[in-house]
Amino acid sequence: MIYEIAEIDVLEGHAEAFEAAVAEASAQFKAARGCHSMRLERSIEHPLRYRLVVGWATVEDHTVHFRESEGFRIWRALAGPHFASPPRVEHVTVVLSAFEQ
Amino acid sequence: MIYEIAEIDVLEGHAEAFEAAVAEASAQFKAARGCHSMRLERSIEHPLRYRLVVGWATVEDHTVHFRESEGFRIWRALAGPHFASPPRVEHVTVVLSAFEQ
Repeated sequence: MIYEIAEIDVLEGHAEAFEAAVAEASAQFKAARGCHSMRLERSIEHPLRYRLVVGWATVEDHTVHFRESEGFRIWRALAGPHFASPPRVEHVTVVLSAFEQ
Repeated sequence: MIYEIAEIDVLEGHAEAFEAAVAEASAQFKAARGCHSMRLERSIEHPLRYRLVVGWATVEDHTVHFRESEGFRIWRALAGPHFASPPRVEHVTVVLSAFEQ
């Protein structure tokens, strides 16, 4: 399992609409091959900056299978109009889960 | 509950020692006021880049109470020698937990 982290800056005044678009698009992720989880984080210091965090079985499930799918097209049609710039995308693995209490 | 995200670039050849230092320092976080969770993520595209993700009750539990504590001094003494540059720190809230399957 890996995580896609997409840092997304949205246009001024678009935060609410962007959050609604992500909620609407979540069904596309949920149905995608290898997709395990999805959450949206919002920066406290920079309120127009979000991080979309999506769990995938493999990097390719995101970069190949999802990006070539109709689900991706729907996601971008919903959320893209709110982007201030192209998302910055990176993939990570969890190397240490120290504790949760 | 908020999350601290610290992006940390480590020095070439220091990845293993850095991960061990984070594991050792985790006890300092676990004992800190308001600290709920801690994990370490490693970038797949940039293997010298890590994200330390720490759950806190409030931003101030991190930026005031922890940073002024002995635990912070110990954390920095353990992990600091492996940093290639100062960590980039941001705080986020989770605005949407769409699904987990």
